Amino acid sequence: AVAMPAIAQSAPEVKWRCASSFPKSLDTIYGASELMAKQVSDITDGKFQIQIFAAGEIVPGLQALDATQNKTVEMSHSASYYYVGKDPTFGFGTAVPFGLNARQINAWFLFGNGLTLMNDFYKKYGVVMFPGGNTGGQMGGWFRKEIKTVADLQGLKMRIAGIGGQVLAKLGVVPQQLAGGDIYPALEKGTIDAAEWVGPYDDERLGLYKVAQYYYFPGWWEGSAALNFFVNQEKLAELPKNYRAALTAAMAQANESMLASYDAKNPIAVQSLVKAGTQLRRYPSDVMDAAYKASHQLYDDIAAKNEDFKKVYEDMKAFRNNAYLWWQIVEFTYDDFMVRARTRG
Amino acid sequence: AVAMPAIAQSAPEVKWRCASSFPKSLDTIYGASELMAKQVSDITDGKFQIQIFAAGEIVPGLQALDATQNKTVEMSHSASYYYVGKDPTFGFGTAVPFGLNARQINAWFLFGNGLTLMNDFYKKYGVVMFPGGNTGGQMGGWFRKEIKTVADLQGLKMRIAGIGGQVLAKLGVVPQQLAGGDIYPALEKGTIDAAEWVGPYDDERLGLYKVAQYYYFPGWWEGSAALNFFVNQEKLAELPKNYRAALTAAMAQANESMLASYDAKNPIAVQSLVKAGTQLRRYPSDVMDAAYKASHQLYDDIAAKNEDFKKVYEDMKAFRNNAYLWWQIVEFTYDDFMVRARTRG
Repeated sequence: AVAMPAIAQSAPEVKWRCASSFPKSLDTIYGASELMAKQVSDITDGKFQIQIFAAGEIVPGLQALDATQNKTVEMSHSASYYYVGKDPTFGFGTAVPFGLNARQINAWFLFGNGLTLMNDFYKKYGVVMFPGGNTGGQMGGWFRKEIKTVADLQGLKMRIAGIGGQVLAKLGVVPQQLAGGDIYPALEKGTIDAAEWVGPYDDERLGLYKVAQYYYFPGWWEGSAALNFFVNQEKLAELPKNYRAALTAAMAQANESMLASYDAKNPIAVQSLVKAGTQLRRYPSDVMDAAYKASHQLYDDIAAKNEDFKKVYEDMKAFRNNAYLWWQIVEFTYDDFMVRARTRG
Repeated sequence: AVAMPAIAQSAPEVKWRCASSFPKSLDTIYGASELMAKQVSDITDGKFQIQIFAAGEIVPGLQALDATQNKTVEMSHSASYYYVGKDPTFGFGTAVPFGLNARQINAWFLFGNGLTLMNDFYKKYGVVMFPGGNTGGQMGGWFRKEIKTVADLQGLKMRIAGIGGQVLAKLGVVPQQLAGGDIYPALEKGTIDAAEWVGPYDDERLGLYKVAQYYYFPGWWEGSAALNFFVNQEKLAELPKNYRAALTAAMAQANESMLASYDAKNPIAVQSLVKAGTQLRRYPSDVMDAAYKASHQLYDDIAAKNEDFKKVYEDMKAFRNNAYLWWQIVEFTYDDFMVRARTRG
């Protein structure tokens, strides 16, 4: 029953700023933060307004976390692994090579120890993290020549950052750090030999298929990539309880919406890329095996010196072990059948 | 900045009743509806209250949709495919044999035509549907003897409902409809030879492993099973805009939360079942192939007579074709590697 007495309620006007680490051109990622802000506004009758600022508008994209920590902004939409330079433990908030797939990382965050452990860690930076979307499994990058064996990686200059870059360095690659907009000209001029970005939908818009023919999969350094909302701890605590609930629900909606959006867009984009001449290539087994081995050696090395990393890594690894044991039973055999049934027509 | 002027706002007291089709013992499914109600209450400072009623408390579980249509309740938490007896088109709201996996159906709902098409259809029943969780891929049921070929299905009495039951009937199975609580005694006495329920976590609690040894996968009739919130169309329209936004965000949060919860619980439960003596068995190829063929024959037969079904089926099939083309590139090859890496230890 809907009764309509006009009941006076304390609904303060709150204005927040959210620094995104992303340009508006990454419209699937950026769109999720806009959805979050719109929902918070709609829920509160416009009383709680969150304005999103694209990378560079208030602070550079890679300083979104710092801006949240020092209260330049109340919150940010970013990717935890952008901050592995501060501490490699940040990797687990987004993606580490051979980590969890998109459903698994969400399960680890929400119903495993993932979010609790990561938020224990983020306390050092004065922020609270909420899952803020996922790209799904990413592609393994664009190459100007074919990779037939791990030897073909030797001396290759590749645009790839973070822990994935460190692992590829162990395999002979020379990792380069380049902003999204600089990738195309560098590949075109041959300043770099390869580059990774996201997946078909985002990569197509960057035009990389025009300057590199071979498109490798899977992107084993990002079996999925979780984005993150970082909220300043004190600012979150200042919010009335109802606004905090509104924010939480809106962030959860953004979280599920982004993955669904990528899952709808990538199938169309990959076909368009193939029509434009892109050659899809699966990473050779020896590259996958060498990368897997190098990744886990790196993790063991880091864990030996970094208690935070060790704690989260061990928990993630145990969760992954259980998750893939189950995954191989139903999800994998169902997908296996459906993939083959589709190919048969 | 948080300013605290006590601004008067129109926040009516609204009390809704939500009829669940599920017993409280299915705590992952039931818990998602409770999470939704709690979030709506928290967001609105307790002004918008939704009380959840378990199956049978107001109406029997399978009448939740009807109760929503005739305004006995304002909304329900149910599974669209429970109503395939009214019209097989209901199947697409939850699961059809060889349909979309959990991420794909969410993408189809939110960013394909899925939700639009289904809500066009649900208009006939006076309700609006919102995605209300997913179990993920289900198991293919408990059998008292092994199934080595399609011939072993001949004459088998199996507890399975809906379109999956119709397909299995074409393969020689005699489908039986039994409520959850009646499955265990029927299997124990041998009144039935096989039964399907959900997956490891829910099945373990029903104790089915004590009376049937062989546990088959994948549950090809439920490659994923989407649950649904049905809201009475007029009741939804009566809600203030801010309450509608609160409800929408809270339902989205419940939607993502349920799948994550199953993804965290099933890996533990399946190991516990195996320890208790359960034998995991993959469905033989000839059963999968025969079921796939029989399913699509059935769809073509229904589509020839049912315009609503035809429209949704064709859209789902096109989406599935694109979705699995993309799935086989990154997601499948990543999972394939991770499954094998785990097994190697």
